[in-house]
Formats: sequence, C-alpha cells, structure tokens
Amino acid sequence: MKIGLIGAGRIGKLHGEILTHRVPGVEIKSVAEIYADTVEKWVQRQKITTLTTDYKKILNDPEIEAVLICSSTDTHSQLIIESAQAGKHIFCEKPIDFDIQRIQNALSAVAKAGVKLQIGFNRRFDHNFKKVREVVESGGIGEVHIVKITSRDPEPPPISYVKVSGGIFLDMTIHDFDMARYLCMSEVEEVYAQGAVLIDPAFSQAGDVDTAIVTLKFSNGAMGIIDNSRQAVYGYDQRVEVFGSKGCIEVKNDFPNSATLSTADGVVSEKPHYFFLERYQASYVAELKAFVSAVLNDTPPPVTGLDGLQPVLIGAAALRSYKENRPVKIQAV
Amino acid sequence: MKIGLIGAGRIGKLHGEILTHRVPGVEIKSVAEIYADTVEKWVQRQKITTLTTDYKKILNDPEIEAVLICSSTDTHSQLIIESAQAGKHIFCEKPIDFDIQRIQNALSAVAKAGVKLQIGFNRRFDHNFKKVREVVESGGIGEVHIVKITSRDPEPPPISYVKVSGGIFLDMTIHDFDMARYLCMSEVEEVYAQGAVLIDPAFSQAGDVDTAIVTLKFSNGAMGIIDNSRQAVYGYDQRVEVFGSKGCIEVKNDFPNSATLSTADGVVSEKPHYFFLERYQASYVAELKAFVSAVLNDTPPPVTGLDGLQPVLIGAAALRSYKENRPVKIQAV
Amino acid sequence: MKIGLIGAGRIGKLHGEILTHRVPGVEIKSVAEIYADTVEKWVQRQKITTLTTDYKKILNDPEIEAVLICSSTDTHSQLIIESAQAGKHIFCEKPIDFDIQRIQNALSAVAKAGVKLQIGFNRRFDHNFKKVREVVESGGIGEVHIVKITSRDPEPPPISYVKVSGGIFLDMTIHDFDMARYLCMSEVEEVYAQGAVLIDPAFSQAGDVDTAIVTLKFSNGAMGIIDNSRQAVYGYDQRVEVFGSKGCIEVKNDFPNSATLSTADGVVSEKPHYFFLERYQASYVAELKAFVSAVLNDTPPPVTGLDGLQPVLIGAAALRSYKENRPVKIQAV
Amino acid sequence: MKIGLIGAGRIGKLHGEILTHRVPGVEIKSVAEIYADTVEKWVQRQKITTLTTDYKKILNDPEIEAVLICSSTDTHSQLIIESAQAGKHIFCEKPIDFDIQRIQNALSAVAKAGVKLQIGFNRRFDHNFKKVREVVESGGIGEVHIVKITSRDPEPPPISYVKVSGGIFLDMTIHDFDMARYLCMSEVEEVYAQGAVLIDPAFSQAGDVDTAIVTLKFSNGAMGIIDNSRQAVYGYDQRVEVFGSKGCIEVKNDFPNSATLSTADGVVSEKPHYFFLERYQASYVAELKAFVSAVLNDTPPPVTGLDGLQPVLIGAAALRSYKENRPVKIQAV
Repeated sequence: MKIGLIGAGRIGKLHGEILTHRVPGVEIKSVAEIYADTVEKWVQRQKITTLTTDYKKILNDPEIEAVLICSSTDTHSQLIIESAQAGKHIFCEKPIDFDIQRIQNALSAVAKAGVKLQIGFNRRFDHNFKKVREVVESGGIGEVHIVKITSRDPEPPPISYVKVSGGIFLDMTIHDFDMARYLCMSEVEEVYAQGAVLIDPAFSQAGDVDTAIVTLKFSNGAMGIIDNSRQAVYGYDQRVEVFGSKGCIEVKNDFPNSATLSTADGVVSEKPHYFFLERYQASYVAELKAFVSAVLNDTPPPVTGLDGLQPVLIGAAALRSYKENRPVKIQAV
Repeated sequence: MKIGLIGAGRIGKLHGEILTHRVPGVEIKSVAEIYADTVEKWVQRQKITTLTTDYKKILNDPEIEAVLICSSTDTHSQLIIESAQAGKHIFCEKPIDFDIQRIQNALSAVAKAGVKLQIGFNRRFDHNFKKVREVVESGGIGEVHIVKITSRDPEPPPISYVKVSGGIFLDMTIHDFDMARYLCMSEVEEVYAQGAVLIDPAFSQAGDVDTAIVTLKFSNGAMGIIDNSRQAVYGYDQRVEVFGSKGCIEVKNDFPNSATLSTADGVVSEKPHYFFLERYQASYVAELKAFVSAVLNDTPPPVTGLDGLQPVLIGAAALRSYKENRPVKIQAV
Repeated sequence: MKIGLIGAGRIGKLHGEILTHRVPGVEIKSVAEIYADTVEKWVQRQKITTLTTDYKKILNDPEIEAVLICSSTDTHSQLIIESAQAGKHIFCEKPIDFDIQRIQNALSAVAKAGVKLQIGFNRRFDHNFKKVREVVESGGIGEVHIVKITSRDPEPPPISYVKVSGGIFLDMTIHDFDMARYLCMSEVEEVYAQGAVLIDPAFSQAGDVDTAIVTLKFSNGAMGIIDNSRQAVYGYDQRVEVFGSKGCIEVKNDFPNSATLSTADGVVSEKPHYFFLERYQASYVAELKAFVSAVLNDTPPPVTGLDGLQPVLIGAAALRSYKENRPVKIQAV
Repeated sequence: MKIGLIGAGRIGKLHGEILTHRVPGVEIKSVAEIYADTVEKWVQRQKITTLTTDYKKILNDPEIEAVLICSSTDTHSQLIIESAQAGKHIFCEKPIDFDIQRIQNALSAVAKAGVKLQIGFNRRFDHNFKKVREVVESGGIGEVHIVKITSRDPEPPPISYVKVSGGIFLDMTIHDFDMARYLCMSEVEEVYAQGAVLIDPAFSQAGDVDTAIVTLKFSNGAMGIIDNSRQAVYGYDQRVEVFGSKGCIEVKNDFPNSATLSTADGVVSEKPHYFFLERYQASYVAELKAFVSAVLNDTPPPVTGLDGLQPVLIGAAALRSYKENRPVKIQAV
C-alpha cells in the first residue's frame, strides 16, 4: 500500500518515519511540502522517491491509496475535500478546523466519496488510556459516574503561537474533550469553564488563559472534570480516572525509569516524561498501524470524522462559558 | 485538666475514649447525656465518676475547664453560647449549625467570653493532609493554582438520615470545603456545583443528589475541584492534590497493609480503609491533643470559629448553585 | 484478669502502657522492678497500685493470673521456671536465653506446669507480615519456593551494647529467623552466613560484623535469604517477599504519610518510619491482645516456646557458619 | 557503515531489524545463515541485498566494517577469531563460550587485531538498570554494601534445551553475574550457590535445578544475592536493589500500563511484561546504538571481552559450589 504525505513539518516527519520504519506493509511514495528544499535531506534519508511542492501530484497518482494530511490547520478541510474527491483514504491531523461549517463540509465530502477518514487523536492509542477505555467498555467499573482528566504541559508555548492557537480550550483542552468522550463513551451535553492567568501575564495580553478547569455533563448522566495548566514544572502531567458504579480505574504518568533512591534526605524518583514526544511515542505508531489496518481490511477507522467535529463544538462552548461565566449547552453553539 | 463531655453518642464515646487513654494530662470528670441509661456501662468502663442527664451540672462545675460538645447539631449553637458564658473552653463537633445567624451568635458569645473554641474538622489532623498543608505553607509548590479533592464514601447513609442531613453539600462536601480552605490557604469566593442521582433514586425523592462535582474560585486566584460520591464500592476514597507554580503535591489513600500479590491472574493489593473510623482514627487523637494543648498553653486553637462558619457559607452557596445551575458568589449568601 | 509486670525498663513500660490503655479487660496489678525508684512516677501515672523490688510478691499473689517478663535476658529462663511453678501464664520478651540448655529447662517447666507461654516476637503481629503469612497459609502463592527478608536498622547500637549483644546473628537476625519460619511455615535445616564490617571498624574490635547475608534451606525444600545492615541511613527497612509456585507476595515499608511532591528537581516522598517503635507500634498492641485472648479463652498462644527456641538454634548455627565459612546444619548445634 | 550479520535466528533477526530501522547511519549489507532458505523472505523485507550460507563472504568483503555474531554459542569463539583476523569490529551474542580457554583464545585474537569487541549483555542498557548504575557510579548511595538481584523467567524452557544449556548458572544466572559486576563496579571473588528442583522433576533428570539462590563476595567488600526461578507465573520478574553507606536504590519491573482498577473485590493492576522481548526491547536498540557509536567514534565498547569472560568464570564456580555445597573462590576455577 502506497501513501502520500502532505506536509512534512515536525508532525509530518514523525508520521513519515513511523510509516517507513515501524509499520509493515506500507510505503510512503511521495511527499508534498511547500518548502520542499527544507526537507530534501530528510526525504532522501527515508529513501522516499518523490518530493514535490504540489500536493495535487499526490492526489492524481493512481498508485497512492491514502494520504496523510499534516499541513497547517487552515488547509485541512480543503485538503480533506480534495483527497476525498480523488478517492484517497485520509488520515488528518487534529483539529480538522476551528470553523464548524468547514468541518461539516469536509465530513460531507468524505461521506459522499465513501473513503475512510481517521483523525489524529493519538492519545486514544496510548497504552494507559486505551486500557482505561477497555475496562470501561467491558463494564469493569459498571456505569460511568465521574471522568477526571489531568492534562498539564511542562512549559507554555511561545506567545506568538498562543495568539493564533484559538485559545486554550481549542488548542489544549480539545485533546481532553476527545479523551472525555472516548472514556465516558457518551456525548458531552453541557460545559462550564473557568480560567485564570496564573503563570504569565502575556497570556492575558493574548486574550487567553494559562490555567483552566472545565466541568462536563454527559448525555448518559455522568459528569466530567478537566484541569489544565500550561506549566507543570515537573514535566508532562497526563492522568485520567474514571469512577463508576462498580469501581474506579486510574492511570498514572509514565516515567523514564522506575528507580527509587532512598537516602537520609528522602526518597526520590524520576519526574514524568518531559513532553508529548516522549510520552506519546508509542501511541503515534499505534494510530498509524490502526489507520493502515482499517484501509487494508476495509474496517471503520477507530477515530472518525464525528470524533473530529465534537471536540471543536465542546471547545467553542467552553470558550463561551468562560467568557460569560455560566454553563453552556453544546447544542447552543 | 478536667473536661466535661456533653453528648455520648458514637462520636462522643470516640472522643471520650481518646481523652481517657490517649491524651496525657486530662481527665473526663463528667458526662452529660439525655439517654444516660444507654451509656452507663460505657461510663463505668472508662472510670468516669459522674454521669448526668443535665449538661448544666457540667457548666456549673468550677473544676471543669473545658467541654466537648458532641450532642446533635441543632443543640450546638445554644450549648456553645451557654458554655462560653460559663467560662468553659469549647471543643464542638462540626457543623456548628446550618443557620448562619445562629453560628454568628455562637461565635459572638465565644468572642465576648474570651474562651477558646475549636471546631471538630478532624481531617486537618490527618497525617496525609497535614503534610500537604505543611508543604503548601512552606512554599514547596510555590503559589497555589489548582486544588483537587476526591471525597467518596463507601456506602450511602440511610435515606432517613439523608432527609435531615441538609443535603450532600452541607453534610458531606462541607468537609471538603474546609479542606479546600485549609490547603489553599485562601478564602473561597465563588462556587459552581453540579449534582446527579446515579446511585439510588431514593436520593431524588429526598430532594438530594448522590454524586456531585463542585468547582471553586479562591480569592488568591487559585481554582478548586471537589468530586463526591456516596458510594465508592472499593472503600473510603480520600485523596487530595495541590498544584502550583513550583510543583505538585498529592496524597493517596491509606491501606490496611502494603501487601501486593502477583499471580497468573494479575497483581492485587488491598482496598483502602473502609470508612472514616479506620482512616481518620489517628486524626481524632491528634485534634484532641491539639485542643488540650491550646488550652493548657493558652495558644489559639488550630480550627477556629471562622473555620466553622465558612464551610457552611460555601455549602449554602453550592446548594443554590446546584439548584440554579450557575456559579454563585459566597458573599451572595 | 490481673497481670504482674516483671521489669519496667523501656520495653516493660511500653507493654505496661499498652495493657493499661489499649487492651480491654485486663489490669496490671503489680510491677516488680529492681530499680523501683526510677519507675515510681510512671507507675503512679498508670494508676497501678503496687510497686515492688521483689518479683516473688507477684508470683505469690493468687489474684495475679499472668506475668509479663520484661527484665534482662539473663533472668528470663529462671523467671519462666519460677512463674510456671507458681502457676502463672507467661508472656516473655525475646530471646528466652542464649543458652540452649537453659531454654530447654524453661520450656520443660512450662510444659510440666501446664501454663501458657508466649514469646515476644511482635513482628508476627505486624499488619504487613501477618497478611503475608495469611496469604501463604491460605495457599495464595502455592508451595513456597523462596523467602526473602530485608531487615536493616537505621543506626548501629552503642558498641558497649554490641559487645554483650551475642553478635548480629543472635541480636538482630534472630527476628528474621523467626520471620522466616513464620512465613515459610517450615523449619530451617541449614544455614550459610556471610558477614562484613562495612559501617564501623569498632564492630571488628567487638568481634562482630555490621552487615550480613544469610541463606537458609527449609525442610519443605524452600530456600531463604536474609540481608541485614546496622545502618540504613534512610530509616528502618523491613520488607519481606515470599515467592511460590502460584505467585509472589511482597510487602513494603510503612511511611509516615503518602505525600508525593513533584517539582523541577524530581519526585520526592517520605522516608520509611525511623525505627521499630514507630514501625511496630500496632504490633505490640496486637501481640498483647493475642496473649490476653489466649489466656482468657484458654487457646494456644500464637508464639510458642518452640518458637522461642528455634531462632536461637539457627542463630548459633549462623554464627558457626560465618566463622567457618561453610553451610551448617541446624541439628549440628 | 556497512555491517554483516552472521546467524539470522531469532536474536539475529531481532538485531537485524533494529539495525535497519532504529539505528541511523548503518546498513546491513550481507546476511550469512546456514539455513539460508528459511530467512529469504525476511532478508527481502529488510531490503538487504546479499544472503549467503558462507560467512567467509562477509569476512572477505572489504566494504563491511563490522559483524554481528548471532550464530549458535559453539561457533562464537571461532567466528570471533576469524573476524578479528579479517579486521572486522565484532558484536557477539553472549556467552562467548562455556570453555574458558576458548574464550581466552578469542580475546587474544581480538587484542592482537586491535578490533573492537562488544558482548551482547543487553540488560546493561535497560533504562532501569542503567539508571541504577549511574547512581552507584556517581556516588549516590556511597560505598556499595549489598547488591540484590531478582531474576525469574515466566516459564521454563523445553527440557531438550535445558539438557544442552550448560545448567541454570551458565544459562540463566550468567546475566545476573554480569549485572552484579556492572552494578557493584567490582569483581566477584567468591560464590556460594544453592539450588533446588521445585517446579518440574524433569530438571533433576536433566542434571539441573529450576530454582537457585546465589550469594557473592566482591573484592570491594560488598556482598551480593541473586535469586532465580524458571517459573514466575505472573511474568518476567527482573528487579535489582543496591544498598550502600549513603542510601539504597531499587528498580521495579516494567508493566504494559499503569492502570489500577479498584472494585469491591480489591485493587488490581497489570502483571509485569511477559518475557525478555517485551521487557528488554529498548535495551536491544540501545546496545546496538552503543556498538555503532563505539565503532564510528573509535571509543571503547561499553561491554568488553573481559565482561564476556568473567560471568562464565563465576558461573563455573557457582556450579562447583552447588555440587560441593560450599563457597568457591573464582580464582579456583
């Protein structure tokens, strides 16, 4: 199976290397990248034969069965539409778009073309979160009552990025909205978001917050809590807990090693992995294996277009909730 | 130092035995209990000399320096007032009252008499939570950004109790409101409460909920999260986490032992302590030692009348928030 | 039930306070202590009526049903004999004696008199070790293959004590020999002991070692490992692990609290309890409750005279093994 | 840098795939495998150009700078000698040989040729054990007093394998002897080995044991303990602990995920990884990266020929110790 890669920035290269070295049975035939000269060496090292600045060459290549869309967010929906029209199966990085209408247009095109679309919510493939979902799904904790998600970055992004990020709820919490749906196995109906600038006043100037707490009401009656911080000085903090009628399942952070040093000064162990590349490494491999498997076996992809749409809706509702300091229903946005 | 015990129900007996056997330098001289005949044997076993149905005998006894008020909640404020007028130092079980005005009257009487008043928020003396507070107080996590409290009972109380309990926010979450103030070292300004009946429909009929999520805004800018359940089938779940600019401190549950059994079926360890008597045993001893020490050394008691008032205010605001599904400011109640 | 306490040094006082305050249904009637004046105040505080320098007054008191022998080791066997002859049930601190013949004489006297004798191997009553034994006994790990015991003190005793201690194998490892038998539920047949002076050269001068590793062969085919150090700078290190055909059970140390502090410098938690008074506090209460229960209910005491004899035999074999650097069979000593 | 792979059985393929996909800057040019037809497809999938039954083609290829010797143990020493004579750098799987003289011949040839030789003790590159070594090396626990190694397989190998394995001390414990030297940073001087057949009587018939305890004396005064079992039903059990004058460092097993499920039945978490392929996956990558780096940068390889020799010597001494039931000095073998 031959694949075309559209966009070879950081995440595009990551996916490209995984497909080349870690996923058997596939091959990246072509890479499309506007700044082609910046990736020439990388393309050679991967032994990929074709590099182009024009993604249409990929869409027009009948040998290519699927595309990975890893370009900037504002191009996603248009590329999804064109790829679908060209009959390619699609793996698209999150988010599809910040504009609900454009997302819906993209999903319509996919539905019409009958191609597969998988959205890059890689955390669903994390060994820890996947296990939680399996236990929830198999009834191991009974009916879900409370979902708790801790999601804290080790350091804030540059303020220049913050300004165009769409704000914490659409840039950062969006992963947690996806995780909440994934773990609760139910749709979010209402959201209440609190936020504060506690780390860096520059967030205020950018019209954003750096610390947030969001509570959720799900359609199955369960409730959810998300807490976010842009700066956990001890590293990437990614934990979840799901509590239900028959029990509670929780997962901790991952650590570089399990060493515990006991001295007269105390008992010391490692900090969690520093950031998402270390923590979610294996999940990136797993999500691409899942995509390739869905295409090869003609099965539904595990993260659908709807899964791409819902977190954006919840994020928009959260933003409004924060601004108006009141709970907001998802169907209101 | 001689002490009078007013009310010898379950919690009164608990305190009485601790004072007799675990706190050096004090002695319970008299017990006042309306149903005196039900506690006669217990009083004898403790080698306490005087048992009466009339608490005024305690208040009129010049040898008695301090009283423990362990009678039913509706009698607390009146007993505080009379004890203060009699010049006795007072340890009073929580809550002081559900009525704000009556609490304020009681606190005024205490202030006027110049006696000491300690409220029985025993969890502050738990080895785990105390350590968290110490670390927060010493700056170990820098400025507080997020306080998280998990507080779940192993099984619901009888519905007959639920009906007169004041509701989950005043009966159960009240401890967590106290804990939040204790750990954040700041006052709560605003509260938003969600609730649901997920365990037993009888809660609906009693006008109450059995599962709740409450978020808080503190005057120092921090935010808080509390999650409550009336039924954690694996036992009493009492954990907190405080996150700040320099780090994060968290405490786990306590367990009857640390045994871990690894077999072909998995790795199994003990459930947490079943309920508060097991979990908070040592904290009850510590709070009474602290009270006795405050009286003997004429130092301020570690849990003040204000500490008794604030959680009731927050609870009242939470109840309103839940009913109106909107955030409510504390000063509004 | 009235009890006489013979010897009111540190451990005698500990037992005395526990009997007075923590074990219902018993009373210490008399205390015999050679240096009576040093314990007068303590005896008063415990409200014990009789203090004497002559233990025979206790043995001759018909009201006293049982004695606690907490005097120095060299007096134990003689006191056991006389107490047995006086018809008193006996709780005796470990070790009974360092001399095998004298132990056997004492056990004979006990057998002849038909009184109960419990030896003070308190660690058997520790919540952790007790759980391990329960799991082993119930078949939870199948047949025992390997027993591992880590037993390290936080700091060495004074060299003056070391000189008269009988050496590490009879002073310190003796507890672990008892634990090994308790957990393996089988007798030790052969022992091989290595030792070294790694902490303080003064141990060499005292003819002793400060660090030791001992391996055991049990009559049921299992093998055992004990490691000892006189100085674990991080605190009292007391862990065991039992591995068998169906699994493995292990217990960790106990800690003052479960707080975990994550900062930019790492993740820090508490050191284990400092020493045996903190760690084994509850086990002292439990062993006395068990003794009182055995007497009151006329059931066999849970730690027998044989349990007092065997560890001394193993210790003697270990000492010979260390000196001759070869494995030694227990029946050879 | 071009590499030749000699022997493409299970471990050979593992190394081959790692070199192809996980180690940048190298390429496997040729594979030599007696049963070439069994690996044809694998060689194609890896896009390796040359497959031969004659390893001399690799040794004679001037483009090939280094070889990986992954053939059966009895061929290792001869292949090392020939490869060294051909001027190739060598990575050789453990053990070099069971015959001391043949090992020494091989090491002499390497020394004479001046090529690099790295032995495949991959566990040294495990994230956990590596961290322990780093802490020991940096003085984090002061002087080493006690090294403890738990090493248990999940299930016994076939008895046909056991019969030719060299026995547990040379087949299984040999890894732990290497680990002991690595962690203690000192040579083993004396060994005492106990063994028993507790899992399967077939081990007796094969002249071997299935459970073993080995104690070590190091030249720096420290002592060591190794416990082995051929069958830990809960999975691969690989833990170490190093105790010293300033503290203790220990590492736990690795687990597939950190999920903890609390229900009315108890608290359950995952079993450790099942066996070495899961547990030591990353260590295989790291050891080959280290080898390639040593060649490319002309630095000493991190696991030397001496590191290959010593564990065989200790293993031989352990075997004699077990047979004669007495401690044996390494220099005696």
